[in-house]
Amino acid sequence: MYDLNQSLFLRALRRLPVERTPVWIMRQAGRYLPEYRKTREKAGDFLSLCKNPELACEVTLQPLRRFPLDAAILFSDILTIPDAMGLDLYFAEGEGPRFGKPVQTLEAIDKITVPDISALSYVMDAARLIRQEMPSTLPLIGFAGSPWTLACYMVEGGSSRDFKRILNLVYSEDKAAHRLLNKLAISVGEYLIAQIKAGVNAVMIFDTWGGILTPCNYMDYSLNYMQHIIHQIKSEYPDIPVILFTKGGGQWLEQMAATGCDALGIDWTCDLYNARQRVGNQVALQGNLDPAVLLSTGECIRQHVGQVLSSFGSGAGHIFNLGHGITPDVAPESVAAMVAAVHELSPQYHLR
Amino acid sequence: MYDLNQSLFLRALRRLPVERTPVWIMRQAGRYLPEYRKTREKAGDFLSLCKNPELACEVTLQPLRRFPLDAAILFSDILTIPDAMGLDLYFAEGEGPRFGKPVQTLEAIDKITVPDISALSYVMDAARLIRQEMPSTLPLIGFAGSPWTLACYMVEGGSSRDFKRILNLVYSEDKAAHRLLNKLAISVGEYLIAQIKAGVNAVMIFDTWGGILTPCNYMDYSLNYMQHIIHQIKSEYPDIPVILFTKGGGQWLEQMAATGCDALGIDWTCDLYNARQRVGNQVALQGNLDPAVLLSTGECIRQHVGQVLSSFGSGAGHIFNLGHGITPDVAPESVAAMVAAVHELSPQYHLR
Repeated sequence: MYDLNQSLFLRALRRLPVERTPVWIMRQAGRYLPEYRKTREKAGDFLSLCKNPELACEVTLQPLRRFPLDAAILFSDILTIPDAMGLDLYFAEGEGPRFGKPVQTLEAIDKITVPDISALSYVMDAARLIRQEMPSTLPLIGFAGSPWTLACYMVEGGSSRDFKRILNLVYSEDKAAHRLLNKLAISVGEYLIAQIKAGVNAVMIFDTWGGILTPCNYMDYSLNYMQHIIHQIKSEYPDIPVILFTKGGGQWLEQMAATGCDALGIDWTCDLYNARQRVGNQVALQGNLDPAVLLSTGECIRQHVGQVLSSFGSGAGHIFNLGHGITPDVAPESVAAMVAAVHELSPQYHLR
Repeated sequence: MYDLNQSLFLRALRRLPVERTPVWIMRQAGRYLPEYRKTREKAGDFLSLCKNPELACEVTLQPLRRFPLDAAILFSDILTIPDAMGLDLYFAEGEGPRFGKPVQTLEAIDKITVPDISALSYVMDAARLIRQEMPSTLPLIGFAGSPWTLACYMVEGGSSRDFKRILNLVYSEDKAAHRLLNKLAISVGEYLIAQIKAGVNAVMIFDTWGGILTPCNYMDYSLNYMQHIIHQIKSEYPDIPVILFTKGGGQWLEQMAATGCDALGIDWTCDLYNARQRVGNQVALQGNLDPAVLLSTGECIRQHVGQVLSSFGSGAGHIFNLGHGITPDVAPESVAAMVAAVHELSPQYHLR
């Protein structure tokens, strides 16, 4: 077994004392790394990379070799589930994800079935391999998209500016929307549990599009299903920490914290001090440097890292991260500067 | 002079008692109306329509003929100021606004000057004409984009997904960013005062992109400049109500309310009950039906109008509106249903 007892990341998630703030980066295995681009080229395309456990393992480990990060995150994509449901996922160059067979009729919704987890075995194979290959002292994070976010992509057929189709479903066919979300919640729950069985040490739910909803609809169509998933995980694996991240969800932190999750991912539009005042006794907080800061100078990066650390303040329960995924145009040196600044500036907040 | 003393809209802005909740619609003169599309065709394109006072007047009045709305809003665009600054605004079909000469160097920023208001006289001509032609009992709303929002478009060269260029300016050239914003704030202030002189009875500042900022940067780069503008207006026209709208600004309502504005525009991601608890004694609230509701059935529209009215609750200080601009695919009948529902359902919240 791996020795994870001293993991700063897992300790911070449990709000236990640490000597410095742990740090990892959303999309840390990604296009900003030249070695990632090389491996991806070898794989052919993004989806082939996700589906090849050896290469997925390789890119997962790449950022750990460069930077003293406190966790790895399984290299994969949130849309593996819809792909396993037969929606024919592909990535058009420069356009983001698309589905060959989007879900755009009530019939299509009713034909959707919870995929057999064996259709996603490549993900669990990658998780097992990564867990075996990575440093035994570091935790591996598994993840999935939220049911609402997956439904957005499935119904829109890809990214969207206005989310017309899915909102039309919400307002005009709410029962069908709930049928779809229910199947997605079961799928996501089974998927995350399979990842845990394959060796991941914490899981994160990415709710990229929860923030486009009204407060009422957020509770009914997004948070409600994430809560079901959390209960499902906790009933089987009470000790596996769950991180919940709704981009644009800053107004709903109290409700998010009440789901039984262990930590909230906080985007860059929230102030950590304020967030901690609101929910700090219930959950740990992960975030929240503005990703755009990484396009600036080393000095500016250091200053803003300092601001994020100071806004959380002293004590346990903070995991440093960006407020959203790292962008492809960031220089690896800037990431090094960010991680170094966390190492250097955070111990003062953990003196006992 | 026009008899505006009984205007429900102006009374609600001042939080005085009304017999029912006033209602208008962001982008009420717009593509969802067949008569608008006809007039626009006559003008040639969108910008020519903005620059033709007679036709701008015509489209401003069109929604008032169809629906019993409580205010008109000057037909124009937030990007008239950058256009007057020489950035060569145009609208590429289906792509939104673009600038032929975006501001993408420090030299370009320093070359920008506050435009002579005569370069925008077509807007004031339209305002005067509309004020003359419209019902004397209804108020006319003037508007402008916030300095931050204008800067986003000017530096990005148009709409953006990631706002890389403007954020790079913020993080790497903050003095230049402030120089640009300062010139924009002076321009917007003069522009709104010119609109008031031309006869508008209230003004609204649209901060479409304030919500992409960190809390700190929102205060420094967006709210700060809007506050300057409000002070400028109030020192000359203390009785002209000012409405402040930051899309995605739900976390900062307290700070927005403290600027000295009269009302806050509230987007659909906020709950009006909650917003009122936070700032209700300082300002009126305008909003906030999810625009996507208008793509649903009349019954569903009525139900959601009822929810918005009930979330604000009893008493003065609510102006009904959408949480964002109306979209081109809405049926005029759906707008009629929304307005009728406000007329029918709101009086119960104003019994004395």
